[in-house]
Amino acid sequence: MIRMIDLILAKRHGKEHSQDDIKFLIDGIMDNTIPDYQLSSWLMSVCWQGLSNKETSWLTDSMSKSGETLDLSEIADLVGDKHSTGGVGDKTTLVFVPLMQAAGIPMAKLSGRGLGHTGGTIDKLEAIPGFNTQLTKEEFIAQIKKIGMAIAGQTKELAPADGKIYALRDVTGTVESIPLIASSVMSKKLAAGANLIILDVKCGKAAFMDTLDKAENLARQMVEIGKALKKVVIATVTDMEQPLGLAVGHTTECIEAFETLKGRGPEDLRELCMELGAVALVKAKKAENKEKAMRMLSDFMNNGIALEKCKELISAQGGNAKVVDDYGLMPQAKHKFALYSPYQKAVWISHLDGKTIAEGCKMMGAGRSKKEDKINLGVGVILKGKIGTKIEKGEPVAEVWADSREQFERVQEKILSAFSFEENEVETPNLIKATVS
Amino acid sequence: MIRMIDLILAKRHGKEHSQDDIKFLIDGIMDNTIPDYQLSSWLMSVCWQGLSNKETSWLTDSMSKSGETLDLSEIADLVGDKHSTGGVGDKTTLVFVPLMQAAGIPMAKLSGRGLGHTGGTIDKLEAIPGFNTQLTKEEFIAQIKKIGMAIAGQTKELAPADGKIYALRDVTGTVESIPLIASSVMSKKLAAGANLIILDVKCGKAAFMDTLDKAENLARQMVEIGKALKKVVIATVTDMEQPLGLAVGHTTECIEAFETLKGRGPEDLRELCMELGAVALVKAKKAENKEKAMRMLSDFMNNGIALEKCKELISAQGGNAKVVDDYGLMPQAKHKFALYSPYQKAVWISHLDGKTIAEGCKMMGAGRSKKEDKINLGVGVILKGKIGTKIEKGEPVAEVWADSREQFERVQEKILSAFSFEENEVETPNLIKATVS
Repeated sequence: MIRMIDLILAKRHGKEHSQDDIKFLIDGIMDNTIPDYQLSSWLMSVCWQGLSNKETSWLTDSMSKSGETLDLSEIADLVGDKHSTGGVGDKTTLVFVPLMQAAGIPMAKLSGRGLGHTGGTIDKLEAIPGFNTQLTKEEFIAQIKKIGMAIAGQTKELAPADGKIYALRDVTGTVESIPLIASSVMSKKLAAGANLIILDVKCGKAAFMDTLDKAENLARQMVEIGKALKKVVIATVTDMEQPLGLAVGHTTECIEAFETLKGRGPEDLRELCMELGAVALVKAKKAENKEKAMRMLSDFMNNGIALEKCKELISAQGGNAKVVDDYGLMPQAKHKFALYSPYQKAVWISHLDGKTIAEGCKMMGAGRSKKEDKINLGVGVILKGKIGTKIEKGEPVAEVWADSREQFERVQEKILSAFSFEENEVETPNLIKATVS
Repeated sequence: MIRMIDLILAKRHGKEHSQDDIKFLIDGIMDNTIPDYQLSSWLMSVCWQGLSNKETSWLTDSMSKSGETLDLSEIADLVGDKHSTGGVGDKTTLVFVPLMQAAGIPMAKLSGRGLGHTGGTIDKLEAIPGFNTQLTKEEFIAQIKKIGMAIAGQTKELAPADGKIYALRDVTGTVESIPLIASSVMSKKLAAGANLIILDVKCGKAAFMDTLDKAENLARQMVEIGKALKKVVIATVTDMEQPLGLAVGHTTECIEAFETLKGRGPEDLRELCMELGAVALVKAKKAENKEKAMRMLSDFMNNGIALEKCKELISAQGGNAKVVDDYGLMPQAKHKFALYSPYQKAVWISHLDGKTIAEGCKMMGAGRSKKEDKINLGVGVILKGKIGTKIEKGEPVAEVWADSREQFERVQEKILSAFSFEENEVETPNLIKATVS
């Protein structure tokens, strides 16, 4: 008979659990026979001793099966899903889903809402009039069968064992653990049913993955879990020091996503979609090699096919597809104010803190403090440059979309404080630090 | 405001807590505002990161003040207490308390009952007809004032925070931690009020302190806690591979203690009392140096003064002091059976497992499985030798005190299995491995 105290002691002394041990653990969490005080001491042991690849994949597998799961196997051999560990200005999903579908990969994307300073894709989609993200499981699957893609908000909690464990980790100082983070992310993705899982691991001072080493390690562990459980997993490690792209907000980010689908997006966002997409196409045997895959994706953006797919997605989910050509159909703040650097000469942006920009947006109503909060979809910030950009004398550093001058004045100092400047040229950092597959 | 999650993270990352942090922790445990799942994750962090000397002494201090405390300061400047971390055949208290009092040190000894395979002093004293260990706090203090010594069972739980923490450690794999063990032992001793604390740390394969290094480390940490809290602490590290002395049981152990007070006890028990006593006398300035202290203690055993003190103690607590001269006044099993080695030639005892001897005694009723169990005081085992003793052909290895032949036959194999023999001479191991003060 397996006893929890023995699992704790085994882990404390660096021994490997069996698959039965892990099953016992997850079963015990779900039927409440393992008390929280034992689970938390096991979790703290894991923070020190780690988990082997086997243990991590068994844990992921058990957690993914702890509640409802989606079966997408009748849709196609390979169904894609995309996930990012969170960041400011991340509108990748809006670009990536239609782009992948254009290349022939069905995409089943379940998203969350934003909480804290990172925006959620589901919230951003609400800027598109009529767009319905509240699909039932059946509607979700039917739409993917019909048009090859869907983006919906999670209706039920997937991988509830992960939810329970995460809630405890949050209050017991055990969040920071690469195998625990890897299994947490992967268990939800596996429960969601896709078998081509495309991940973007953010790396930066403000993230748990504060070094490239840690972030690569996390990416590698998620890929390994995938291998052990016979899924295809691709992961990039990207810099989250500054926002992704130039737009932060809801309507602002939708516009930027549409521009990117038209081949006119900001360099970093385009690069990320190309990198993840190209590796995925090669893995899915839709392209011979990465170079050809990139050309294919570039073509879809230049010839309007990707945008067409985006319109198809919007229409299928009840939205007004005309928004991609007429941005005025989306809620926009009344005023657009230019925000200037305090320097009387040309300067380079040397640092740009995404979290501070997001906090500024939240002060204008673009974020939630509580689950029930209503969001102001029309406000936002459009950066005029990022780290390494030269700001000429008298040029603005950002455009602030605000409902009133008072609102703008309340946030301008905050938003400006996100920037640091230097008088000498500053190098533009690379967004993508590593790709693991 | 201090938050438990911050304490967990600080400890996980190797930071030192402040005295206020530790007070917050103990207060939170006592008023149940810190949930067990946070406490257990903090405890597991401590198992990995340890505690500094300062943290350990603050923790000990806070725990010791978490419930009732005894104030013995009006008795004398220095009041002694003695504690052992548990072992088989440990009757040291019965010898040590009168011996120290003979040398002018007041002794206030609070003892527990035996549970599992180690016997409790309070149980052993019940072999002395009339001896009352259920003293109130007031009676306990009054007796020490009057005759300079008392041995009583704990009436209330001392250091209840330690009790709560220990119960959680037991089920969360966090028992094994030197600073946690040190603070647990010391908090109870401090609550009991003595300021000259004499400790015997057992070391051996079966103990948590399975190496000399660990045991010395524990002893050192307890001495350091004492220094930080202005108490005098002395600790020996002793071998617990085999029983202490030759007698295991209740009446049997009382007899051995009286014999030792008469200067006729087994070498190892006498040595332990002399070592702890001599260091204590020097610390208490009752002797100039260890050599003179040893001579003093030896004199007290040879000239009958120590035995006289023992009679005084027994009488004061309502016992029949005549037992020290007439062992027949104590409950004795009906039969004494000789247990022989299975060899047809002379052999040396090469190993002797105390726990197995104790289990044999327990099978005859000399131990408790549950708190409420009644104990058979008259049964026991008297070893004829220990590791390194030569057992001549046809000589017994032990005498078993049993109520019937059937009882003896039921346990003889068990007791014999405690012994290993060799045909070549085996060295006698040292009992005392280290003394720390």
